[in-house]
Amino acid sequence: MPTDAERACFEAGIKFGSLYHQFAGTPVSPDSAESLGRAMEEAIENQPHCVDVDVDVRTDRIAAELESQSAAYTELTGRFIGVRMLIEYAGVTVRTRMEMEGDYPMMKLVGVEA
Amino acid sequence: MPTDAERACFEAGIKFGSLYHQFAGTPVSPDSAESLGRAMEEAIENQPHCVDVDVDVRTDRIAAELESQSAAYTELTGRFIGVRMLIEYAGVTVRTRMEMEGDYPMMKLVGVEA
Amino acid sequence: MPTDAERACFEAGIKFGSLYHQFAGTPVSPDSAESLGRAMEEAIENQPHCVDVDVDVRTDRIAAELESQSAAYTELTGRFIGVRMLIEYAGVTVRTRMEMEGDYPMMKLVGVEA
Amino acid sequence: MPTDAERACFEAGIKFGSLYHQFAGTPVSPDSAESLGRAMEEAIENQPHCVDVDVDVRTDRIAAELESQSAAYTELTGRFIGVRMLIEYAGVTVRTRMEMEGDYPMMKLVGVEA
Repeated sequence: MPTDAERACFEAGIKFGSLYHQFAGTPVSPDSAESLGRAMEEAIENQPHCVDVDVDVRTDRIAAELESQSAAYTELTGRFIGVRMLIEYAGVTVRTRMEMEGDYPMMKLVGVEA
Repeated sequence: MPTDAERACFEAGIKFGSLYHQFAGTPVSPDSAESLGRAMEEAIENQPHCVDVDVDVRTDRIAAELESQSAAYTELTGRFIGVRMLIEYAGVTVRTRMEMEGDYPMMKLVGVEA
Repeated sequence: MPTDAERACFEAGIKFGSLYHQFAGTPVSPDSAESLGRAMEEAIENQPHCVDVDVDVRTDRIAAELESQSAAYTELTGRFIGVRMLIEYAGVTVRTRMEMEGDYPMMKLVGVEA
Repeated sequence: MPTDAERACFEAGIKFGSLYHQFAGTPVSPDSAESLGRAMEEAIENQPHCVDVDVDVRTDRIAAELESQSAAYTELTGRFIGVRMLIEYAGVTVRTRMEMEGDYPMMKLVGVEA
């Protein structure tokens, strides 16, 4: 049988995959970054065992992207967001983070505490 | 060749399909409805020729849905939102609306003015 | 009141926005391109007034992308697909296409025939 | 530091959240169920550490849904799919499953083996 800590980590992964694939592809610009970040946080916090979600939409990177292209907006993808989440399941607290590792938006398990 | 009015209506349709299918399935509750509605409006207003988007997330219907199910949130679908959009293309103004017709969330062309 | 041709063009736009934003962000590789293209076609053909959808997933461009990055897959976005659609509404036939114009995946109204 | 088994469970959760929220809301009918299921499997199998994904789109439940509504298609949601996944990470094999528990599509950790 899986341990409570393993179940807590599984729950944490679900939230990360959900957040990324619900919102990837959303039209985003520096002006709309703030409302998108808040919606992502509050949407995923609805899910079970999800205590806190913090999404930092990187308006600096979005602005830089817009300088190299013709349209005035781009599509949300991993390099435009930093994410931290706190999950609690059966007394186990899991901390996760997403950040770029080279060119890949890596979802990381930062800490597991019973 | 398509007319400017026809092109304007095509653009209006694109915005509606985008709004619906980007956000359908998002976890939503009465508490997170407001932030989701704002993000939907600002995301789609980024798209070309889109002057104004108004999304009314129906917290009353979401609350009623939650009374009939076990989870404390549900997934965004058409019956939980009312939408109005204003599109301008080549001097043509198009007004659109989404509302329920029976059990179907109908996207409607309300007006086309040159 | 909008004309039947304008309503047909609105319907055509809905299908395009739906297709793009439902599937943008999907993990894709040369090996999975075929099944994704078929699913996109059949999913959107379910929508009202949609007679035919043809999606050409550009495995050549996906393969080229993979050569410049660390991961063995990428996320679906406009430059990896070409799309043609045929919409019929109230006796009006609308032909649409999506293809790159420079760096932007442009959705185009190709023809409107009553 | 998280254990390899905990990291494997986190990876398994990511795949489940991705699968669900990428494809929730997709227009689906009994005729298009097969292509959608194959695309879901092959898309998620692209992700790191994901060895096998099996999606059973429940055409019987979709057909029953269509009998109670006006449209000839519906939107993909949890009660229309059964899913099994096999994840391998650092020598740990994780088995997961999604199935309905009452009215909720529960994602479950079935087994963790080192």
